[in-house]
Amino acid sequence: MIKKFKFGTPFETDAVVKSIPLESSSLPYFETDTTEGLKFTLPLSKEDAVYGLGESVRGINKRGYIYRSFCSDDPNQTEGTHSLYGAHNFIVISTKDKTFGVFFDCPSTVTFDIAFTYYDKLVISSDNTNMYVYIIDGDSIYDIIREFRIAIGMSYIPPMWAFGYTQSRWSYADRDSVRNVVKGYRDLDIPLDAVYLDIDYMERYKDFTVDEKAFGDLKVFADEMKAENIRLVPIIDAGVKIEEGYDVYEEGIKNNYFCTDKDGKPFEACVWPGMTHFPDFLNPEARLWFGEKYKILTDMGIEGFWNDMNEPAIFYSQKSVDNALKLIKEYAKEDTLTLQGFEDIKNYFGSRQNCDEDYSSIYHNTPQGKYCHKDVHNLFGYNMTRSAAAGLLKADPDKRFLLFSRASYIGMHRYSGIWTGDNFSWWSHILTELKVLPGLNMCGFLYVGADLGGFGYDCSRDLLLRWLSLGIFTPLMRNHAACATRNQECYQFEKPEDFKHIIDLRYRLIPYLYSEYMKAAKNGEMMFKPLAFEYPDDLVAKCTEDQLIVGNEIMIAPVYTQNALGRYVYLPEDMTAVRMQGGELTFTDMKKGHHFVEIPENEVVFFIRSDKAIPLCNPAKCVEELDLNTLELIGNGKEYVLYTDDGFAKDYDNPENLKTLKKQ
Amino acid sequence: MIKKFKFGTPFETDAVVKSIPLESSSLPYFETDTTEGLKFTLPLSKEDAVYGLGESVRGINKRGYIYRSFCSDDPNQTEGTHSLYGAHNFIVISTKDKTFGVFFDCPSTVTFDIAFTYYDKLVISSDNTNMYVYIIDGDSIYDIIREFRIAIGMSYIPPMWAFGYTQSRWSYADRDSVRNVVKGYRDLDIPLDAVYLDIDYMERYKDFTVDEKAFGDLKVFADEMKAENIRLVPIIDAGVKIEEGYDVYEEGIKNNYFCTDKDGKPFEACVWPGMTHFPDFLNPEARLWFGEKYKILTDMGIEGFWNDMNEPAIFYSQKSVDNALKLIKEYAKEDTLTLQGFEDIKNYFGSRQNCDEDYSSIYHNTPQGKYCHKDVHNLFGYNMTRSAAAGLLKADPDKRFLLFSRASYIGMHRYSGIWTGDNFSWWSHILTELKVLPGLNMCGFLYVGADLGGFGYDCSRDLLLRWLSLGIFTPLMRNHAACATRNQECYQFEKPEDFKHIIDLRYRLIPYLYSEYMKAAKNGEMMFKPLAFEYPDDLVAKCTEDQLIVGNEIMIAPVYTQNALGRYVYLPEDMTAVRMQGGELTFTDMKKGHHFVEIPENEVVFFIRSDKAIPLCNPAKCVEELDLNTLELIGNGKEYVLYTDDGFAKDYDNPENLKTLKKQ
Repeated sequence: MIKKFKFGTPFETDAVVKSIPLESSSLPYFETDTTEGLKFTLPLSKEDAVYGLGESVRGINKRGYIYRSFCSDDPNQTEGTHSLYGAHNFIVISTKDKTFGVFFDCPSTVTFDIAFTYYDKLVISSDNTNMYVYIIDGDSIYDIIREFRIAIGMSYIPPMWAFGYTQSRWSYADRDSVRNVVKGYRDLDIPLDAVYLDIDYMERYKDFTVDEKAFGDLKVFADEMKAENIRLVPIIDAGVKIEEGYDVYEEGIKNNYFCTDKDGKPFEACVWPGMTHFPDFLNPEARLWFGEKYKILTDMGIEGFWNDMNEPAIFYSQKSVDNALKLIKEYAKEDTLTLQGFEDIKNYFGSRQNCDEDYSSIYHNTPQGKYCHKDVHNLFGYNMTRSAAAGLLKADPDKRFLLFSRASYIGMHRYSGIWTGDNFSWWSHILTELKVLPGLNMCGFLYVGADLGGFGYDCSRDLLLRWLSLGIFTPLMRNHAACATRNQECYQFEKPEDFKHIIDLRYRLIPYLYSEYMKAAKNGEMMFKPLAFEYPDDLVAKCTEDQLIVGNEIMIAPVYTQNALGRYVYLPEDMTAVRMQGGELTFTDMKKGHHFVEIPENEVVFFIRSDKAIPLCNPAKCVEELDLNTLELIGNGKEYVLYTDDGFAKDYDNPENLKTLKKQ
Repeated sequence: MIKKFKFGTPFETDAVVKSIPLESSSLPYFETDTTEGLKFTLPLSKEDAVYGLGESVRGINKRGYIYRSFCSDDPNQTEGTHSLYGAHNFIVISTKDKTFGVFFDCPSTVTFDIAFTYYDKLVISSDNTNMYVYIIDGDSIYDIIREFRIAIGMSYIPPMWAFGYTQSRWSYADRDSVRNVVKGYRDLDIPLDAVYLDIDYMERYKDFTVDEKAFGDLKVFADEMKAENIRLVPIIDAGVKIEEGYDVYEEGIKNNYFCTDKDGKPFEACVWPGMTHFPDFLNPEARLWFGEKYKILTDMGIEGFWNDMNEPAIFYSQKSVDNALKLIKEYAKEDTLTLQGFEDIKNYFGSRQNCDEDYSSIYHNTPQGKYCHKDVHNLFGYNMTRSAAAGLLKADPDKRFLLFSRASYIGMHRYSGIWTGDNFSWWSHILTELKVLPGLNMCGFLYVGADLGGFGYDCSRDLLLRWLSLGIFTPLMRNHAACATRNQECYQFEKPEDFKHIIDLRYRLIPYLYSEYMKAAKNGEMMFKPLAFEYPDDLVAKCTEDQLIVGNEIMIAPVYTQNALGRYVYLPEDMTAVRMQGGELTFTDMKKGHHFVEIPENEVVFFIRSDKAIPLCNPAKCVEELDLNTLELIGNGKEYVLYTDDGFAKDYDNPENLKTLKKQ
C-alpha cells in the first residue's frame, strides 16, 4: 500500500510512474516540523534498523551517520563522506512493531540524520519545502520494496553481453592500446567482452566526435573488435565544448538548449574540454536533441555507453575565473603578499570545484517553469541518461543497449545502470561495494558494479584477485583504473592463470546471474539481499553486513582483508559450500552456524542454500560463445527456473524464456 | 646477535646506543644494488611475513604495500597513505627457514616495497647512499626484538598519573572551558586525570608564553586544577614566532640557533603563529637552549607536555609567498585569466604545504657538519623531543614528566611516547590503532595511543564507546578532537553512565597495565603483541590481525564495526572471558577455537589466558586515589608479579617494586 503526501509545490521528477492519488490526511509515523524548511522526526529504539539510501557509504543498516542526498563528484568514498554520486531518498524503517518504507521525492538536498546526533532519533530534513513524500506499508520488507519498485517502474535491462567481464582504463588512447588489451586477455584465454573508451577517444573531449588520428574510422575499428567478440564502450560527458564550428555546440546555442545563468546567457564552466556549456536536460526538447546524437556512434557499430561528469562536475566556472582575476589583481598591486593574502588566494582557487555558488548560478528551462539548478540538482545526471536512453530507443527500438551513468536519482533506474564512481584501490572498498549493493537494488538500480581493482591509487595483485571474487557476482563487471595509476589489467600481474580461473567462474555463473537479474527486474525484486531481509528473525543474520544473498539460491562471503587466511562466515541455514580451486569445483555440505573458512587468494568460495540448485555452463572466452544448452545443476536442490532469451531483444515477457531445469 | 654494516658516510642518528663493531663482510640475506642510491632485495615466498615499521598504515603483517619512511604532517591515515608522522625503519622478516630483523638507520626517505610491485619480493630502497644497516639474528621473534631494543636503549617511562584517562580538544581556550570539562567528568563520577591545552593557551601561538587574558596566572590555575587531581598538559609547537621583543625569538637569532636557508639566513615558514623560524634541533647547543625553556612552564606547576608540528609541518615558506606574488603579478597583467593561468595559480598555492622544495631549502648546523634538511628530515621531531627531555631532566632530575611527540624516529623512544597524530572519527581508525600498536612496541615506543573518538570529523556516541573499549588498554588514553568538530567529551552524549563503566574498568586495570608497561620497558619486551608472535605455529593465530595480546596475561578483541552485535574471536588457547556489564564483571571459561561473542556497545569483553591471573583494584576518580593495596586477582592462574612504585621517581630497578601476588 503506497500513499502519496504533498508539501508545497513539488517539482515533478517522474521518479514515480504509477498514478497514486494524493492523501489529504497528514503524514503518518513522523512528527512533521515546517517552521524552517521541512523536518520529519521519528523515534528509534535500540533495535530498530534503517535500510536503503541507494548509493551511500557505510553499512547496510544506515544507523549512526548523517547522509546527504546531493549528487557529488567526490571520489573520496570514505566513512567520512556524506554524499556520493547518486541521490536515492528511499528508506525502509524496520522496528519491532512496524516496518514501512518512505520515499522523499525531492530533487535538492535532503539530509538523513539516522541516530547520529541523537542516538534514538531519525531526523530527515531539507531546506526545500516542496516535495512529495510516499509512505509504503506492507507485510514484509520485500513486500514494501516490491510495492515501491512497482511504483517507480521496471528496472533497466542490459544486453546479455554486458554480463561479461570488461576492461577499462583512463585511457586506452588509440587502436593499438585497445588491441593490446584484447590480445593480453585472449592470449591467456581469460574471457573478455568489452573494452571501454575513456575521454581520450574524443577529438579534444568533444562529445560525439572521435579522434581519428588515434582511432581512424571508428566504424572500421568497432567492426574489427566485434569480429573478436569485443564491444567498444565509449564515454559521454555532460559538458559540450564551446568551439565555433562544432555542430553540437552550435546547435545548442542556436536552439537555446544549454543551461543558462540568471540572465539567460549560457552558463560556462570548465571541465575536460576546457570551457563548456551544459545541455539543459530538464528541457524536453534539449533532452531529445542530445539523445539523438548517440546515433552518431551507434551508426559506427557502438552498442554501449557510459555517461560521466553528470552531477554535473564543474572544475570551475567562467565566473570563478573572472573573480579569481579580480582577486589576484588586487593582491598583485602590493609589493609583498601578506599571509592573509596568500590564504585568500589559496582558499579561493581551492574551493571553486563543484561549489555551491556555481550550482546556485545555473538555471533550467523546464516545462514546470524556470528553475534554479540547486533546487533540482539531483535530476541532472538522471535526465542526461534519460536523454541517451530515448535516443538509443529511437536509433534501434528493438535492441537493448548497454548504458550506465555516474550521477543518478531514482527514476533513472528505468533507463540505465550505474557504476559507483571513482573508488580507490583500497581493501575497504571491496566491502564498501558489497554493502552498497542491496541499497541500490532497493532503489531500482539492478545493473550495478564498482570499478574492480579500484580507480584511484595503485592496485596490487592480491587486491585485484580478492576484488574479482566479489566482482564475478555483480551484473556490471568492469576493471577500471585512473590515469597515472599502475596498470591493472589481469595480464599485468604474475600467475595470470589465477585470474583466468576466477573470471572463468563468472562466465560459468552467467546463466544463473542473468536469470536472477531478469527475475528481479521483472518482479520488482532485489538481486542482492542483506541477510537481515532474508532471515529477519535471526539476530546474527540481522547484523551480518559482509555477506549477501545473490538471487534466490546463493550466498556470498568474499574476503576483503589483506594477507587473510580466510574469513568467518555465518550460515543462517544449512548450505553447500562451492569451492573453486584451480578451475575445479568441489562441494561441501555445511551446517547452519558460525564457520571459519579458509580461502586462499586464488580460490573462490560461495554457498548454495540447502534446498536450492543453480545452473552452470562451461566457460567461454565471451558471452556470445557460452553454450547455454549444456547446463549442469549444482547444489542439493532438485530444479532451477532458468531465464534465457537471445540477449538483445526486448521480449522479456515471452513465457518461453522461462524453463524449469530438473536434475537428472 | 646484532651486526652493523656501513654504507657511505652515514649521519650519526644516535638511534642505536649500544656500541657495536662494524662488520667488514658484505650484508647478508639481501641482494644489494648500489647502482642508483641503495637497493636491498630479498625474495619472499607466499608464507613469509614482514613485521615492524612502527607508525604505519595497514596490517600487522606489512605485506602487500609500499611504505615510505618520511615524517609527514598528513592526517589522511587511510589505506592509501605511504607515510605517517613517524619514520621507524625496523622490520622483522619471518620465513619458514629463518627469521631475522633489519634496521635501516637512515634519516632521509627509505622506501619499503613489501611484495607490492612484485608479489614475491621485498625491495628496500633509498636515494641516500649513506646509512647503517643492522642485521639482528635470534632464536625467536621476541629474541630478535629484545636484542634490537637493548641496542636502541630503554624506553621512556611516564609518571603513573599518565595512565589515567585524559581529555583534550583543540582548544579549551580559557580557564572556564577547562573547569567545565573537569566539572563535566567529576559531576558524573567519570574518572579523569588530565586536561590538555592545545595551541590557543599561548599568547598568539608563541612557545612558552601563556595567554594571560584567558588563563590568568597559569601557576595559580595549575594549582587549582592540581587540587582536583587534574594535570594540565600544554602543547609545544616546533616553530618559533618571528616577533621583535619575544625572548625566544631574539635569543635564537642572537645565537644562530635557528635552521637556515642555503645562505645561512634563518629559514622562514608560516605555521600557526604566522611566520616562524625552526630551532635547529640537530645543533646540540640549540637543543640545550630550547629544552631549558620548558622550565618556564614546569615552574608554573606543569608536569607534562606534547610536542607537535615537529615533522616539521610547514603551511608555506616565505620563499613560496615570494614566488606566489611573482606568479600572480605575472597573470594579473592580463585582461583575462586563461584556464592554464587558473590551473597554474591553483596548483602553486595548493602545493606549498610541506613541500619537498622547502624541505630541500632548510639547513642544519650539526656536529657532523652542515646538512640539508632533506637528508636528515626524520630526525627533527626526535631531536625536538630529545631537547625537551634534556630540559625536563635538568629542571627536575628525579621526576618523571609526561612527554610525547607527533613526529618521531627510533631513538626518540628513550625520551618520550608518541600519539599517532591526526586521525579521524572513523570506525576503521579503531582497527588502525589496534594494528599499529605492535609495530610501535617493536621499535621501542611503549607510551602510545591514538586520539580516542577521532580527531577530525564528528564523533558519534557508539563510535566513542567502542573506541574507548580499545583505549582502556593503551598506556596513553586520551580523547581528543579538532576544532569545528562535534564536542566529544564523554559527558556530551546520552547515558553517560555507559562511559563511566568503561573508564572505571580502565582504572581497575591500571595495576596490571602499569606493571606490564614497566616489565616491557625494563626487559625490552612488547606490551602489545600480535597473536602471530605469541603462537607462531598456529596458522589461524598467525593471520589474526584484529586481536592482540596485552602484556603477558590478557588478549583483547575490541569491536570496530558500527551496529555490530558482537564479533568473531579466535582463542589460540583456553581462556577466561571477562565481561564488564553495567560496571559488574562476570567470568566465563572458554575453549581454544573460534567463537562468536556478543558484545553490546556499553560492555567490554577481554580474555585472560588459561593459566594466568591479573590484579584489579577498585575504580577511583583519578590515579592518585587508586587503592593499590587492595587488589583482587582474577583469572584461573594462581599468582601475578606486580610492579609498583610511587609513580614519579626513577628507581625502576628497586627490587622492592616487584612483588608476587598470590591467590588466597
